[in-house]
Amino acid sequence: MPPWFEQHATLLDKALDACARRYAWSGWPESPSSKIHGEAKPAEGQARFEAMLNNDFILQQPGETEQVGEEISPYTGEPLGVRYPRVDPAQLFPAINSARPAWAAASPNERVGVCLEILHRCGQQLFENAHATMHTSGQSYVMAFAGSGANALDRGLEALAYAHKAMADVPATAHWERQFGADGVASLDKQYRLVPRGIGVVICCATFPLWNTYPALCASLATGNPVILKPHPAATLPVALVARVCREVLSDAGFDPNLVTLAADTREAPATIALVEHPDTAIIDFTGSPRFGTWLERNCPGKQVYTETAGCNSVVVESTEDLAATARAIAHSLCQASAQMCTSVQNIHIPAQGIKVAGKQVSHQEVAAAICAAVDDWLAVPRAAATLCGTLFDPSVLSNVDHYRQLAIAEGRVLRDSAPYTNPGYPVARTATPLVIAATGADRDWYRKEVFGPVSFIIANESAEACLRDATANARECGAITSHVYSSDPVFLGDAVEAYHNAGASVACNLTGMPINFAAAYSDYHVTGLNPAGNACLADLAFVSSRFRIVQCKFMGVVPLPPSTRGAAD
Amino acid sequence: MPPWFEQHATLLDKALDACARRYAWSGWPESPSSKIHGEAKPAEGQARFEAMLNNDFILQQPGETEQVGEEISPYTGEPLGVRYPRVDPAQLFPAINSARPAWAAASPNERVGVCLEILHRCGQQLFENAHATMHTSGQSYVMAFAGSGANALDRGLEALAYAHKAMADVPATAHWERQFGADGVASLDKQYRLVPRGIGVVICCATFPLWNTYPALCASLATGNPVILKPHPAATLPVALVARVCREVLSDAGFDPNLVTLAADTREAPATIALVEHPDTAIIDFTGSPRFGTWLERNCPGKQVYTETAGCNSVVVESTEDLAATARAIAHSLCQASAQMCTSVQNIHIPAQGIKVAGKQVSHQEVAAAICAAVDDWLAVPRAAATLCGTLFDPSVLSNVDHYRQLAIAEGRVLRDSAPYTNPGYPVARTATPLVIAATGADRDWYRKEVFGPVSFIIANESAEACLRDATANARECGAITSHVYSSDPVFLGDAVEAYHNAGASVACNLTGMPINFAAAYSDYHVTGLNPAGNACLADLAFVSSRFRIVQCKFMGVVPLPPSTRGAAD
Repeated sequence: MPPWFEQHATLLDKALDACARRYAWSGWPESPSSKIHGEAKPAEGQARFEAMLNNDFILQQPGETEQVGEEISPYTGEPLGVRYPRVDPAQLFPAINSARPAWAAASPNERVGVCLEILHRCGQQLFENAHATMHTSGQSYVMAFAGSGANALDRGLEALAYAHKAMADVPATAHWERQFGADGVASLDKQYRLVPRGIGVVICCATFPLWNTYPALCASLATGNPVILKPHPAATLPVALVARVCREVLSDAGFDPNLVTLAADTREAPATIALVEHPDTAIIDFTGSPRFGTWLERNCPGKQVYTETAGCNSVVVESTEDLAATARAIAHSLCQASAQMCTSVQNIHIPAQGIKVAGKQVSHQEVAAAICAAVDDWLAVPRAAATLCGTLFDPSVLSNVDHYRQLAIAEGRVLRDSAPYTNPGYPVARTATPLVIAATGADRDWYRKEVFGPVSFIIANESAEACLRDATANARECGAITSHVYSSDPVFLGDAVEAYHNAGASVACNLTGMPINFAAAYSDYHVTGLNPAGNACLADLAFVSSRFRIVQCKFMGVVPLPPSTRGAAD
Repeated sequence: MPPWFEQHATLLDKALDACARRYAWSGWPESPSSKIHGEAKPAEGQARFEAMLNNDFILQQPGETEQVGEEISPYTGEPLGVRYPRVDPAQLFPAINSARPAWAAASPNERVGVCLEILHRCGQQLFENAHATMHTSGQSYVMAFAGSGANALDRGLEALAYAHKAMADVPATAHWERQFGADGVASLDKQYRLVPRGIGVVICCATFPLWNTYPALCASLATGNPVILKPHPAATLPVALVARVCREVLSDAGFDPNLVTLAADTREAPATIALVEHPDTAIIDFTGSPRFGTWLERNCPGKQVYTETAGCNSVVVESTEDLAATARAIAHSLCQASAQMCTSVQNIHIPAQGIKVAGKQVSHQEVAAAICAAVDDWLAVPRAAATLCGTLFDPSVLSNVDHYRQLAIAEGRVLRDSAPYTNPGYPVARTATPLVIAATGADRDWYRKEVFGPVSFIIANESAEACLRDATANARECGAITSHVYSSDPVFLGDAVEAYHNAGASVACNLTGMPINFAAAYSDYHVTGLNPAGNACLADLAFVSSRFRIVQCKFMGVVPLPPSTRGAAD
């Protein structure tokens, strides 16, 4: 096979170093600007995307039964018209099984090399991926290029680096000898072999189809497990693009392309349960709703289940030196990707009596107003608003916003009303600006769950300590992926860090001047596994080290001759 | 706390190096000989053991309700009379919970230091531990000193080395900065904290009470989890000795001794289910029957479950250069510890047409006879037989031997009959020499399960290939912890290695001149997790890396002041 491991060794080494020291680094460009890429590449990417519309997406997989495709662009309201093969598990699994032995027999470095080449080639289709993501997940073009491009590839490379590290921890051979009493010296040679678990099923989500997919794909594939990618019916194209690359790379390396397959389905006839319950499925990676994630965690005994779901992410504002900067940072989270990110803030806890701003008392109402004003500020320029907010990926998100809007209006609690914003390029785009609702601790039934989409609550707890108690109790009991505290007081900050950590949550303090939703590959451990928002972390040794097992052979004297080495002698 | 991490750093470094290169090494002496230890130490250890008999074992644990003790020496038939406190979970768990925060807040190196000191002090009570093991598990004194002493401590140190490695993979802090568009440079400091899962319950077995206990204890405790040791009612004393050391070391270090507790119980009123199902229990380590192990694996969702159970370990004999040495090696396994080891051989597959011995055909019957003769040879000198075989730990083992003996006699299949042997020091010791039964592939119902104790089958399959097929199918479907092949043919050996590995089993080839049951810490990965004989491996990264999680704090500007550092300023 091509010397990909060696070709991409510098990239892998850099990723290993970044994981160890956790500084800022990216293996791919985040900006789609033609100043970086030239004029041709973006245009070619767009042309390739457009050529896929209203066509069959050819994968030539075993067991293809019919063509399905339900994607509708939230920008145009038009179906994408891309049709993907549905596969029959009764034919798919045997075909995958016949591909397994050669992949399991490949060396860890060969498999890591294949994964590095997959990431490299996926990095060459970031423009068409951006369009595909935009018109399925509803992200803006810039967000789709970065968040579902470089940032997602970085998460994949990070997981691959950990898989490499865990596999490299097991030596290939050893020599062992010692005296046993009067029997003399026993001298043994030993060989250790990594054995993959089985087939991995990766269940992708609609809003960030690749951010968790690359890591799960790399973690399972590098450790020798075939992967079935199960995309969301609303966001299949970005995943199909990855599946096609994987199959091409595997073929180029002389492996069976069926080591990575796409299992497209429909909302009417979902494929997931049949895939995860199949006896050959040994690993399940899931991103999506807490309800199904918990079901998988509890009902797949004997299988490795890795989940990232959701919770009710919180902000506690105790004090600040710069209210405008703080409000701007929080407001950015309410707007970005229309709050459809797993890191979007939902519950903003501000003491009822207000906070100190640079030493001066400012009322709760003024702080709330500053946040709402900051939202308006982010949305003031239509083009910038469109880049920041994107669209609502599904009509159900809009219904959810409407539902909370009616409730809040009925109770006179609207702090900032939601309305469509006009997307300059797409007049019929499905959009909604952030709805901000006033609440108190008495309304906990409203906010103690994920309210998906641009809906947030500004909660007046009776004190800063009560804010912290409410927010951390919710993290512990309802889940949290990100949590924020704003305070000028090092003692309060210290208490807040302790309280969030005790609730099994990570925490960010006083983040301003950057998108606070940003979770950095190689640096931020994403999902703690200690609260209901998921059980797996991107990425740590635990994410990779159980995806393979170890068998060993020890021998005295005659050296076993492996079947694979006999060809030359025959 | 005392600088134990630094004091024992050389030992830890040596263990890390041995794990990485997997050569033969031990941190403790294997022989109880007075040539090594002098005359005083063995005598003092014995005296300390005898002083414990017919006395309460004082642990001063929370929630002690009554004294229980059911141990009966298989050597004397007399009760040991040691009484252990039964604890009420309703009082035990809250007491443990109040000990958790300080232990979780200790640095990884502090916790590893405590574990190193625990192993060090357990290494100083190997003589009393040998007597305690002998009179509960029924092992011989020599075996109890080595197999439940140095060999077990080495497994503990091995697991501790992996825990250290996994924790050291997460840095304590990082600095991260990057440009976000026009917003300027975002500069963040980050702190990463390891968070233990919860309480670990370690369920110990009767025949090797410490061999899996030290690793589970070290893996959980080093990563911050309190440990409840649940000994077998028939073999509590060795575990109680460890619990006492742990509690002393923790106290000496200024930690709450309730971080390690003993939950003694009786066969009549077992404590296990209440412990494992308690909501604060997050980790379960189990050694024992496949039935209960599988139940735990399938019925404890959300908890980490690590099992080592049992299977039907096999030998395939295809050919040999030295039949006497081969027979002697296999026979040793049938005798050692009366085949009550997880690595004891049960199913010996020999082609019906016989095998080549140094190129000459030898019949199946002659090979079987050689093995039986080798058993007799091992047993010829009573003192040596006693050292090798020990006793049957429980009357049920003798019943089991009798059961199979009656069946085999009825069918005329006894190749070697079992009988008590006379133990020179203990005339009433419960003993039985190996029963060897003739079988064919048609009798698979007899041998396709663990038959506990000194019962083995010499199975005449129709060819060497059929031997391999039968043995590997049984490994795959019924479990195997060790597997052996004897062959002079490198091609057959290569095929055999492949077949066992495909069945999820490790394999040893042509082991002679050493105890073939021996599994070496730092070198042999023990249990593959790929067949029904358990899901965990001693030891690999997977054994340790999910016992803790990671939370992080990132901050700009004001540095959070942790509560723990405020004392000086107050």
